[in-house]
Amino acid sequence: MFGVTILGNNSAIPAYDRHPTAQVVTLNDQVFLIDCGEGTQMQIARYRIRRSKIHHIFISHLHGDHYFGLIGLITSMGLLGREQELHLYAPAGLKDIIDLQLKVADTNLPFPLVFHPLEAEGILVDTPKFSVACFATQHRVPCWGFIIREKRKPRKIDKVKVLQYDIPAAFYERLKDGDDYETREGELIRNEWVTLANKPARSYAFCADTRFDESLIDKTKGVTLLYHEATYLKDLAERALARFHSTTVQAATIALRAGVGKLLIGHFSSKYETLDEFRNEAQAVFAETDLAIEGVTYRI
Amino acid sequence: MFGVTILGNNSAIPAYDRHPTAQVVTLNDQVFLIDCGEGTQMQIARYRIRRSKIHHIFISHLHGDHYFGLIGLITSMGLLGREQELHLYAPAGLKDIIDLQLKVADTNLPFPLVFHPLEAEGILVDTPKFSVACFATQHRVPCWGFIIREKRKPRKIDKVKVLQYDIPAAFYERLKDGDDYETREGELIRNEWVTLANKPARSYAFCADTRFDESLIDKTKGVTLLYHEATYLKDLAERALARFHSTTVQAATIALRAGVGKLLIGHFSSKYETLDEFRNEAQAVFAETDLAIEGVTYRI
Repeated sequence: MFGVTILGNNSAIPAYDRHPTAQVVTLNDQVFLIDCGEGTQMQIARYRIRRSKIHHIFISHLHGDHYFGLIGLITSMGLLGREQELHLYAPAGLKDIIDLQLKVADTNLPFPLVFHPLEAEGILVDTPKFSVACFATQHRVPCWGFIIREKRKPRKIDKVKVLQYDIPAAFYERLKDGDDYETREGELIRNEWVTLANKPARSYAFCADTRFDESLIDKTKGVTLLYHEATYLKDLAERALARFHSTTVQAATIALRAGVGKLLIGHFSSKYETLDEFRNEAQAVFAETDLAIEGVTYRI
Repeated sequence: MFGVTILGNNSAIPAYDRHPTAQVVTLNDQVFLIDCGEGTQMQIARYRIRRSKIHHIFISHLHGDHYFGLIGLITSMGLLGREQELHLYAPAGLKDIIDLQLKVADTNLPFPLVFHPLEAEGILVDTPKFSVACFATQHRVPCWGFIIREKRKPRKIDKVKVLQYDIPAAFYERLKDGDDYETREGELIRNEWVTLANKPARSYAFCADTRFDESLIDKTKGVTLLYHEATYLKDLAERALARFHSTTVQAATIALRAGVGKLLIGHFSSKYETLDEFRNEAQAVFAETDLAIEGVTYRI
């Protein structure tokens, strides 16, 4: 399982029962939280996200609609007796805010909160099964996008062929890693004769808040699913530029030129009550576009 | 119109779709907000509270379930272009938290936010029509209750009698204030002969979070409506004491001994899914008890 569940798809001011930005990415037994607008802990309860599975939280930038729900979530985790480490990746200023809020409440969290300030593009988390990296976007304050990647999957053993070539079972793990096999007679059995390619490793890029920025094309090149904000419809490109946001067409252009598998757009301005036109405009440029709808899980 | 609308009735952790503490008190054209737990701005939208009518916000103490929604509400007011002054009455530490959060977002509010630190019991707001005072409660951190009082209402002119006694219209305002009238002949016309008593001035006391504290009896003596927290049912009096909270029976005992008109109980612990037993236990001590239910307006 690799998917993203939308907990909030609206821009700054909550409206029409749409909430500020928060997304949960599930990758097998891992649950990552990306951004945490006000009310995220209620949305987590509403959509039955397993809070205890969250070990990593990523905050893109310090505009309130992307982090005002964090202190409430952390405090509740503490009240519920959490003991597991929680890793928080965010712009440096967030640490003081959290510390101050815990101090005035005379609260000590019962779990280690490990703060990782975002300072440069690169890998944040690296495990045998997945990695998370951050990249800069162009917004009014320092802002970061995130890419979560599965690691390259092992190849599959072709059970008929390995017997046919008489390859010892002890070598199977190396076959899965792509190695060729040499027989005692010195004959080379090429890996692709006895294994099958597994499904390609998948990836999810979250572009946070950003104005149209061609550098995102390289940064998100070929990801399986790209989330790109589309605060405005295409007629408001000027306003988008002035406010460091993007339009439908700009988001879809990035997706098209980055050659991604699918595009998800969100962070809709509170000025729009309905969202159909967002889909129409983006799909005209990049057909594989979905609207980020709260409560829906999009497979990656 | 004098009433209180409940926006949140739960204790620390949101549960069963109950929200953290927030109440709106409406007194004619004034709207006061008392406490502002996470999600209050969404609750304000949901229950169609007129945000622009809020000029005074009172925060009882700096536990997150009483103020984590404040920064979001203030930020949204700014984004919506508010220009009117907003007066905030809260423990001193809140100012730094707000300032820090505005600073990291590089935000200047477009309206004056006037911060009044709560430091001693007494009058906070005094106008010809109403007053708001604060009083200390006993909680784990410094905590304040609030009393909103209508001013004593003017007496009503008895139109038949004032003509009968030939009192000049220029003296009517003084009659409303309770003065007697002396005729040119030196005859005293007693106020109660020519005026009628108006309805008595009403009052609402919000007792915030507190453990059972007999000093609250004097502090809330005779109010029209008393809100007293009842985090636990009566069997958990020991836990209530340890956590600086109250039980149903304790809340009702304060109401009874303070001789209030009605009691409203809230701040229910997340351990309780249903609330009927709260009503039963409190009413056994003080019959005029209501449960604080979200979205309901209780007349004062």
